[in-house]
Amino acid sequence: MPPIVLILNGPNLNLLGTREPGVYGHETLADIANLCAQTASEEGLNIEFRQTNHEGELLDWIHGARQRCGAIVINPAAWTHTSVAIRDALVASELPVIEVHLSNVHSREAFRHHSFVSGIAQAVLCGFGSNGYRMALQHLSQQLKG
Amino acid sequence: MPPIVLILNGPNLNLLGTREPGVYGHETLADIANLCAQTASEEGLNIEFRQTNHEGELLDWIHGARQRCGAIVINPAAWTHTSVAIRDALVASELPVIEVHLSNVHSREAFRHHSFVSGIAQAVLCGFGSNGYRMALQHLSQQLKG
Amino acid sequence: MPPIVLILNGPNLNLLGTREPGVYGHETLADIANLCAQTASEEGLNIEFRQTNHEGELLDWIHGARQRCGAIVINPAAWTHTSVAIRDALVASELPVIEVHLSNVHSREAFRHHSFVSGIAQAVLCGFGSNGYRMALQHLSQQLKG
Amino acid sequence: MPPIVLILNGPNLNLLGTREPGVYGHETLADIANLCAQTASEEGLNIEFRQTNHEGELLDWIHGARQRCGAIVINPAAWTHTSVAIRDALVASELPVIEVHLSNVHSREAFRHHSFVSGIAQAVLCGFGSNGYRMALQHLSQQLKG
Amino acid sequence: MPPIVLILNGPNLNLLGTREPGVYGHETLADIANLCAQTASEEGLNIEFRQTNHEGELLDWIHGARQRCGAIVINPAAWTHTSVAIRDALVASELPVIEVHLSNVHSREAFRHHSFVSGIAQAVLCGFGSNGYRMALQHLSQQLKG
Amino acid sequence: MPPIVLILNGPNLNLLGTREPGVYGHETLADIANLCAQTASEEGLNIEFRQTNHEGELLDWIHGARQRCGAIVINPAAWTHTSVAIRDALVASELPVIEVHLSNVHSREAFRHHSFVSGIAQAVLCGFGSNGYRMALQHLSQQLKG
Amino acid sequence: MPPIVLILNGPNLNLLGTREPGVYGHETLADIANLCAQTASEEGLNIEFRQTNHEGELLDWIHGARQRCGAIVINPAAWTHTSVAIRDALVASELPVIEVHLSNVHSREAFRHHSFVSGIAQAVLCGFGSNGYRMALQHLSQQLKG
Amino acid sequence: MPPIVLILNGPNLNLLGTREPGVYGHETLADIANLCAQTASEEGLNIEFRQTNHEGELLDWIHGARQRCGAIVINPAAWTHTSVAIRDALVASELPVIEVHLSNVHSREAFRHHSFVSGIAQAVLCGFGSNGYRMALQHLSQQLKG
Amino acid sequence: MPPIVLILNGPNLNLLGTREPGVYGHETLADIANLCAQTASEEGLNIEFRQTNHEGELLDWIHGARQRCGAIVINPAAWTHTSVAIRDALVASELPVIEVHLSNVHSREAFRHHSFVSGIAQAVLCGFGSNGYRMALQHLSQQLKG
Amino acid sequence: MPPIVLILNGPNLNLLGTREPGVYGHETLADIANLCAQTASEEGLNIEFRQTNHEGELLDWIHGARQRCGAIVINPAAWTHTSVAIRDALVASELPVIEVHLSNVHSREAFRHHSFVSGIAQAVLCGFGSNGYRMALQHLSQQLKG
Amino acid sequence: MPPIVLILNGPNLNLLGTREPGVYGHETLADIANLCAQTASEEGLNIEFRQTNHEGELLDWIHGARQRCGAIVINPAAWTHTSVAIRDALVASELPVIEVHLSNVHSREAFRHHSFVSGIAQAVLCGFGSNGYRMALQHLSQQLKG
Amino acid sequence: MPPIVLILNGPNLNLLGTREPGVYGHETLADIANLCAQTASEEGLNIEFRQTNHEGELLDWIHGARQRCGAIVINPAAWTHTSVAIRDALVASELPVIEVHLSNVHSREAFRHHSFVSGIAQAVLCGFGSNGYRMALQHLSQQLKG
Repeated sequence: MPPIVLILNGPNLNLLGTREPGVYGHETLADIANLCAQTASEEGLNIEFRQTNHEGELLDWIHGARQRCGAIVINPAAWTHTSVAIRDALVASELPVIEVHLSNVHSREAFRHHSFVSGIAQAVLCGFGSNGYRMALQHLSQQLKG
Repeated sequence: MPPIVLILNGPNLNLLGTREPGVYGHETLADIANLCAQTASEEGLNIEFRQTNHEGELLDWIHGARQRCGAIVINPAAWTHTSVAIRDALVASELPVIEVHLSNVHSREAFRHHSFVSGIAQAVLCGFGSNGYRMALQHLSQQLKG
Repeated sequence: MPPIVLILNGPNLNLLGTREPGVYGHETLADIANLCAQTASEEGLNIEFRQTNHEGELLDWIHGARQRCGAIVINPAAWTHTSVAIRDALVASELPVIEVHLSNVHSREAFRHHSFVSGIAQAVLCGFGSNGYRMALQHLSQQLKG
Repeated sequence: MPPIVLILNGPNLNLLGTREPGVYGHETLADIANLCAQTASEEGLNIEFRQTNHEGELLDWIHGARQRCGAIVINPAAWTHTSVAIRDALVASELPVIEVHLSNVHSREAFRHHSFVSGIAQAVLCGFGSNGYRMALQHLSQQLKG
Repeated sequence: MPPIVLILNGPNLNLLGTREPGVYGHETLADIANLCAQTASEEGLNIEFRQTNHEGELLDWIHGARQRCGAIVINPAAWTHTSVAIRDALVASELPVIEVHLSNVHSREAFRHHSFVSGIAQAVLCGFGSNGYRMALQHLSQQLKG
Repeated sequence: MPPIVLILNGPNLNLLGTREPGVYGHETLADIANLCAQTASEEGLNIEFRQTNHEGELLDWIHGARQRCGAIVINPAAWTHTSVAIRDALVASELPVIEVHLSNVHSREAFRHHSFVSGIAQAVLCGFGSNGYRMALQHLSQQLKG
Repeated sequence: MPPIVLILNGPNLNLLGTREPGVYGHETLADIANLCAQTASEEGLNIEFRQTNHEGELLDWIHGARQRCGAIVINPAAWTHTSVAIRDALVASELPVIEVHLSNVHSREAFRHHSFVSGIAQAVLCGFGSNGYRMALQHLSQQLKG
Repeated sequence: MPPIVLILNGPNLNLLGTREPGVYGHETLADIANLCAQTASEEGLNIEFRQTNHEGELLDWIHGARQRCGAIVINPAAWTHTSVAIRDALVASELPVIEVHLSNVHSREAFRHHSFVSGIAQAVLCGFGSNGYRMALQHLSQQLKG
Repeated sequence: MPPIVLILNGPNLNLLGTREPGVYGHETLADIANLCAQTASEEGLNIEFRQTNHEGELLDWIHGARQRCGAIVINPAAWTHTSVAIRDALVASELPVIEVHLSNVHSREAFRHHSFVSGIAQAVLCGFGSNGYRMALQHLSQQLKG
Repeated sequence: MPPIVLILNGPNLNLLGTREPGVYGHETLADIANLCAQTASEEGLNIEFRQTNHEGELLDWIHGARQRCGAIVINPAAWTHTSVAIRDALVASELPVIEVHLSNVHSREAFRHHSFVSGIAQAVLCGFGSNGYRMALQHLSQQLKG
Repeated sequence: MPPIVLILNGPNLNLLGTREPGVYGHETLADIANLCAQTASEEGLNIEFRQTNHEGELLDWIHGARQRCGAIVINPAAWTHTSVAIRDALVASELPVIEVHLSNVHSREAFRHHSFVSGIAQAVLCGFGSNGYRMALQHLSQQLKG
Repeated sequence: MPPIVLILNGPNLNLLGTREPGVYGHETLADIANLCAQTASEEGLNIEFRQTNHEGELLDWIHGARQRCGAIVINPAAWTHTSVAIRDALVASELPVIEVHLSNVHSREAFRHHSFVSGIAQAVLCGFGSNGYRMALQHLSQQLKG
């Protein structure tokens, strides 16, 4: 069976596409989920795609991934900058982790320039929009096969 | 129908009035809810008054306010200083936001002097006790009518 | 005789309404004075409303308030961030002090995020425009009566 | 009836013993719970032993302890460094609090050297492994009796 | 009528030339005023040249310049580093502002390296001695004509 | 004619693959150039692939790209952290810029956590090894077509 | 004729003894002036004793001292921490300067630990109450005679 | 022969119990020594209990422990925050080290929050009063036996 | 023969006028060179006007100026903030140095507020556009003659 | 019997007068001791005057002063900036402490601007040379009598 | 064949001896080269002695040393404080590196106290003048033989 | 008689060679003393070689060197980073001082990167092992003869 890649989305990402389309575009989180599903299908991966506004739920999902999944793609959103718990959970998962941000966090407020996740991730990308998820999956596919 | 003002209370505020009455007075969160209800009635506003100790629940409430409410009054309590997620949710709501604190946070510990919410709020007040909620509602009433 | 509330305005506030009406609106300091007078009349308060560009004059006024007034409402404007002398004078007045700012200082330059006054004020509000003065007076009225 | 000591465990501690046994040993959280139970029995204490990955749940537990328990032993794990809400809840409990960490946080990353809890705890210990829980209980036992 | 350029000098500049001539030279503020007058005459500008040790007086002068003058040349001296009020007044004047310092402030004490004025000035020069005033006037002349 | 993507490599990257193969692998810069050429061919892009140890040469190349190329992929290596000149040149190019790093810079020394380029790039990725170049090209291909 | 020692007092010191006698004692600034007069008489010094809440007035007094006086004793009060202008005026006076504070500023708020005056004073004393003025005069007397 | 645990006490600890009994209690260092002796006897340990106000003497004692002792319990008192030499000596001893503080240093002045010892200790405890010594000995006993 | 003034321009300044004319105007570096040539001719100075994107070349030019030139006017552009080598070379030249910036660097990003050159320059000006070069030459002309 | 004032001198002060007389004058520590003895005799005080280069010895002397002396005058010299142990010992002595420095530490290196002693001293003076000791004794004499 | 030691000199060092002989002495870089040659001859080493003002050239030389040389002696001059690229190149060379400075950088400006090279060098020396090069060669000679 | 060079060794250096030979080698402090003696004999110097764990003793030795010795070589070990007293004593000695460290302190913990001694030493070396002592002596020999 192809390995499962767990794709996790942090707080407020459920709002994508429903507000300020002039700024963020019309793409919704469901669109991103579809893009990921399509990529997974192309790459022969299994994925699970989830979003939560509850840090504890995210932690539970990461814990559950440990023996069941092959990798994690995570967009921690606002928790990127504030959650040591997510960092610790990701380390404990012993899985390869790719951190994804839709926008380029480095051109936003100074408090968004520090990530508790980046230091323990395998790789990080930001500013590629929804395509960033696809890129992460394609990379993991190559790596999990390699 | 008069606009709804969503009044949100962060962690530990459910304890008001039940501890250290010598310090915090005997007023409970229910008393503040009543004060808000009475003010809303005077001002011809609808209000919803809520408290939670779960950040995710607060985020969900803010998300839900977007098309249903006219403004948010928020006392983020301890999350004031630590939650980027609440800041992001409030921005996403595209509603006017008034930040309220019962005590004067500027005369407390240094880590309480920084607020992730203030920078994106319309207005901020602190140190007015429960009357701060009433003041915020009266101001919004004027503004929503104006 | 009803208690006197001294309302003090710091540097450059005399310019209100005469410049950049697109940004700051057309309301002048005289309009705010009138709003305060009307509020005082409603609340049964005496007020004195003053503005100065001379820190020394402001200090003298605060000193004079000590035994003659019941409370101080102050918009220290630029001195908020630079004057220890005003802080010390306010402490010496032994009066309740409410700090008011027309705009939300927390969404402006970083050097405006620190106030020498807030730590010793009873309460602080910002971002309510001229209504902030009215709110402060209403609150003090309640408090002075209570 | 002997006083209840509430023993609280923060995020990711449910994973103890199931991962990286070469690093963290084979002891699970259940083993620690047993050690605590045995210690409580020796000392004539009642204990409740809990773990959660949801900050809000932890806050609720602390709130509930106020009149029901005699002391709190807490290993806040990652929240040690990020949660003002837990600090505030512990203060509100008006109970003696002992902060416990399995590892010596001072020999880990710099961001683990600051604790929001330590400043309001009665006592702090770290680096004693699971025995730290036992030591905390024994100390509280003596203190609650004294 | 040619536009008026208001030339403002901050605290202690009245002492120029009367102390430490070995260090600061024998040129007095009157000499600089004469140099400015001569430059203005060459350039077809009107100037007003003033000095004060009272911040409030300086603020009043800047306020008065708003509709009467075409530009401001200011040597804020010690207030460069401490006065937000002068910064705010200059912004409110809506006039082009050139900041001038006789000495090179960057080769003096560290606290002289930050200026509250530079960020909102059109241009800044330092270290040119009294000729800096002449250069500023010549530049403004060109600009006001252009 | 398909747009040209300029792929730029900063100092020391010429050494890739020739040292410490145990650490960095056996892939040389020529291998990465080949990977890019193959990707470009698949995507219908023109590429130019260059490396230099001379900052001035890099600046000249960026200047030359302005009207001739459609995008820049840059691995600024050590200059990431020290060169304002490269940042300014990239801004002046008015081209979309993607910043690539072979390793995850966030898990290395603290001085590697700040990039002068990220703030003005369109997107940033690190830790994907040579595949990062391929991912950047694929993304640009989509974008230049879209 | 014996040399004149100029004794200068900064903002709010006019309030001494009239407020919070439980904290600051009953000694007024007039009492300190008398103590200085008596000390001057014992030591054969002339003194001038002044207080102002206007920084500009203080600067004028320092300027006037230059050729007329032999030394300056200054209690800059709140301006200690904020006024570069006073520092510059004192340097320009070319007189020996002794900085005096009634209370021990080092055991008060952190912002009172830095003085712009101390670095250019000849000597500094704090915490000796009104006797500090007397001590400063006695020391200067010895020095001016020596 | 049971292993020797060296118990070291830093500067000023000889004063325990003889001053401010209202604050620190009546327990003297001799009382703590007795408590340790009793604990050692219960646990079958040998101890040596020492105090010095001379850093050099403390270093000599640590050096001497290297081949003679099995562990060190140290209350470095004020040297906790200032002595790199003690840190280096403890590392050189190659013994397990437990750092003990009578009071909770985290609720005292900021300069007491950093310890040069904690980073190289095996475990740290503070705020347990004299019982902290007993707890450290009991833990070491278990560990030395285990 | 009139003294030579060496006019040096740092990285990216060759692009002036060819990009973003809406922002930077249409003036090219050649236009500035012409303005300098015309000014030199008026003032009876010899000038050499150069630009480079290679720090090493700039250093060589400064070295060559030492005995051949009378002064240096330098716009170090991005190197202002990053090059200690240029600072050292300018000091070694033993020539008067005037630092020029076209824009007001103080109203741009924070990293542009520090200059390694200013501390060792004779004078600094910014925000005068190309006229800044002319002003610097006129000042040096006066000085070299005086 | 008149109270004893213990006068303590820290490291290197034994060298006074024997080195760099051009800088520090010819006065030796013995001269200062004599000045103190003479002052004590005038004031009816007993004094003990000591110097040590051993921090431990200084601590022992402070400990010994507790019940035997009425006050401490201390020149901690270099330990001012580095010794928490001396601060703690002085607090434990429960005696009034006056901190004296011969030179004005505020016009020396930055690391000399912080004192661990000042925050817990009753009063501080510096820059008065040996007369500072005399002034401290005269002040204490008045205080001990008052 | 004896091993080659590559001796590298950074920017501005070509000026040695030709400027400010009162400060830097009359020794030129050629003199240092001769001293090195003579030392190499005594020690049986081969040396190559180079200087450049072009960072890129220095990087190229370091790259070239990797398989051809046995060690590097480098005086990075101004680049010490600003070049991550040189640090990276030196690490990549996999050679022992000794960092040499003619003057004692620790008694100069604060920005000279940090070196990007020291952390990855084998040894560092400064303040020994040209003899520092000789000392480094002698040490390497011993080491390469040992 | 040849000049005496005093060689001083700070805390814990007496342990050299007796612990962790895998890390620090088998060389003892006695071996270094012998190496110094042999070097002194070759160079025609007298040396005294000492070690202490007592700062006061080190200060006494430095004081004693003033008129008796020609230079000091010091390895201050841990006191490098914490002792202002040693810095002051070395300055007072008016002797040339060379600071030596066995290991490269710049590649160790951050708190070891600052030295109170370096700023006032003539020269500094680190990372040369015991040969550093020999190098310092050889350099001083040349200098004392020159």
